[in-house]
Amino acid sequence: MSITILKGTVVSAPTLGELEVMESGYLVAEEGRIAGVFPVLPEQYAGAPVEDFGNALILQSLADLHLHAPQYPMLGSGMDLPLLEWLNTYTFPTEARFADPDYAREVYRRLARELMENGTTRVCMFSSLHREATLILMEELERAGVTGYVGKVNMDRNGIPELQETTEESRQETLLWLEQCQDFRHVKPILTPRFTPSCSDGLMEFLGKLAADRGLPIQSHLSENTGEIDWVRSLHPDCGQYWETYRKYGLWNERTLMAHCVWSDSRERAAMRTAGVTAVHCADSNQNLCSGVAPVREMLNEGVKVALGSDIAGGDHLSMFDVAAASIRASKARRILDGWETDFLTVAEGWYLATSAGAAFFGEKPGFAPGNMLHAMVLDDRDLPHLPTAKERLERCLYRRQRDAIRAVWSEGRLAFSCKKK
Amino acid sequence: MSITILKGTVVSAPTLGELEVMESGYLVAEEGRIAGVFPVLPEQYAGAPVEDFGNALILQSLADLHLHAPQYPMLGSGMDLPLLEWLNTYTFPTEARFADPDYAREVYRRLARELMENGTTRVCMFSSLHREATLILMEELERAGVTGYVGKVNMDRNGIPELQETTEESRQETLLWLEQCQDFRHVKPILTPRFTPSCSDGLMEFLGKLAADRGLPIQSHLSENTGEIDWVRSLHPDCGQYWETYRKYGLWNERTLMAHCVWSDSRERAAMRTAGVTAVHCADSNQNLCSGVAPVREMLNEGVKVALGSDIAGGDHLSMFDVAAASIRASKARRILDGWETDFLTVAEGWYLATSAGAAFFGEKPGFAPGNMLHAMVLDDRDLPHLPTAKERLERCLYRRQRDAIRAVWSEGRLAFSCKKK
Repeated sequence: MSITILKGTVVSAPTLGELEVMESGYLVAEEGRIAGVFPVLPEQYAGAPVEDFGNALILQSLADLHLHAPQYPMLGSGMDLPLLEWLNTYTFPTEARFADPDYAREVYRRLARELMENGTTRVCMFSSLHREATLILMEELERAGVTGYVGKVNMDRNGIPELQETTEESRQETLLWLEQCQDFRHVKPILTPRFTPSCSDGLMEFLGKLAADRGLPIQSHLSENTGEIDWVRSLHPDCGQYWETYRKYGLWNERTLMAHCVWSDSRERAAMRTAGVTAVHCADSNQNLCSGVAPVREMLNEGVKVALGSDIAGGDHLSMFDVAAASIRASKARRILDGWETDFLTVAEGWYLATSAGAAFFGEKPGFAPGNMLHAMVLDDRDLPHLPTAKERLERCLYRRQRDAIRAVWSEGRLAFSCKKK
Repeated sequence: MSITILKGTVVSAPTLGELEVMESGYLVAEEGRIAGVFPVLPEQYAGAPVEDFGNALILQSLADLHLHAPQYPMLGSGMDLPLLEWLNTYTFPTEARFADPDYAREVYRRLARELMENGTTRVCMFSSLHREATLILMEELERAGVTGYVGKVNMDRNGIPELQETTEESRQETLLWLEQCQDFRHVKPILTPRFTPSCSDGLMEFLGKLAADRGLPIQSHLSENTGEIDWVRSLHPDCGQYWETYRKYGLWNERTLMAHCVWSDSRERAAMRTAGVTAVHCADSNQNLCSGVAPVREMLNEGVKVALGSDIAGGDHLSMFDVAAASIRASKARRILDGWETDFLTVAEGWYLATSAGAAFFGEKPGFAPGNMLHAMVLDDRDLPHLPTAKERLERCLYRRQRDAIRAVWSEGRLAFSCKKK
């Protein structure tokens, strides 16, 4: 039986707002699955090799639940434009390049490596509409050890000539893609209507049936921007709110991720809670594109599931350390916006959202719970000034996004990245 | 005569909101002072050595007009606390350690190097109240090639027992410090009453006279937080507004920097404009400490001078690329806060504030104007995807804070940092 034993300062987020710390703790996994965190190594593991990281932090690795892989080359571009203009000027032309498999291979190999170097081991990702590039993306993620869901994008209207499919193409390519991606072990397909304005009613209907028939998860965008909401209303006058355009076609359930939800009011949030939909908060992106600041505190108070996404390239950084810090900062902007009425996200809360909350979409329990697959990283902050507590050290690594301090990353039970001290 | 000629894609910010680009341009300096940017090398320089950086960007280096050097060790700490509590729990105890010159030497050497590696060549900096550590800081900045102003902090009330001086100590130590720091060539003293609540009336009066007698610049804090403003009001019931507590003692003129100004209303801003005071905007810090979002657009519209500061460790990053991006994002939060009434800062504006606007405090003209001292950096983005225009490349380097891409930095005419491609 394969046993992994990591020794160090083990910090995990078992509950929203609480960190669990065990100094000189042993994190043990059997066959890639966590057996527990122990202050003293249980007798049954005596003799098994222990990887001792001294005082280094052993943390849950990160989960990025919303990002656009083909926008990786345009990271940090076009930030002076609002959403819909930005899509047409930068995003769609960039995505159109992924018709070229060689280009896709080059970009996606780099992206997969960079995710792992940043400690991101779980993703829910938009590809482009291109089937072949999507398969390449899945292959490169699998090769790098990144796990999660990837979606071939469906969009049969309101694109640009170089980036649009007919309804029939979209259907056929989706079915073919689903057939061709069955052999990946750690990267699975997710249905991905780009957003309501990109998909005809016929396409939405097809995707909803497909989701039901095959038990597939779903990801899309919701209530990011007021202009977008108006547009959706004009496209679906029968729907009272944006989310109803997804529900109408069976794309609204406990396996659904909805990115942004900046303008989701209490009714829309109640619909999310009732259906078990997860809101993916993308703080930097929402601020960069002047979309607004999502009511994350309200969602959490109301019991809506919330996870975080880098949303590159609306967001400008891939690092989920950055994204967690951005979420905290955004919650403070929201607090100011609300006249200091809402509480901001604490560091412990931000960290929970970036780790445990994302992992929950994959059916995992929060923290290093026994039974979870081992998703962990070792962070070495020896070069920085001494801090008295592990919680302060975690806070600092969140704000300082210490990519260079990541010494090793385990994903789905396997060592996926390691790096000597630079 | 010493001549420096740099060839590359020269990008500068001669006006707020406008970038000037010269592809394959020559940036020429004589005796460390800029002679001009030329599309073709003028005949008079024929035969002089040209440093050809190919297509790399040649940019103005950055100016950080507000940061606390002794808070460098606590970067990224205590962000869940509001300003006044954060000061007492984290900041004051951290600063108190700078009574130890060896500790100061170690920290400040590292800080000076990191500033230069991030392309920051001009600073206005708070030290702690310790004279000896302040001299060490000046020495280490000078050694690393960082130029600008450093202030021994004055604080004779409302500190903590380990971090407070008597009025008389504050006076004597300030005079002695001014005597001892005369020999630095590139780092000069600036008077630094911490903020009104930290300084007795007698100390403020002393500092105001000293500023007038010796023609010294002044830096302090203004209207960062509503609690602080109330406190100042109770300390100075004779002053209608916070800024008047500085004016009353002669600490309010065109050589004054005031950090934050988050809550400066139109009257306070008019007082800044009239006196020629520079507001130093510290976007991340203001958001981290839940202070608010400064009305930067209004200040710019009204003709108030505005520069940027990292404000470590209220801010969590030293890189002025970060700070410029944070300012842009904060301006978008402000836009949302203002019901989309105010314009956000564009990339060109953010870059101007981080470079030309800061340099203006040192008497320089905006951009690579002839007569300015050479403060420049070379940024190599060859590893990243091709972008068609220099403006887009600058935007990307602002958002991606590409510290590793900085190949060389000139400060006050001298090559201060260089690094081969990693």
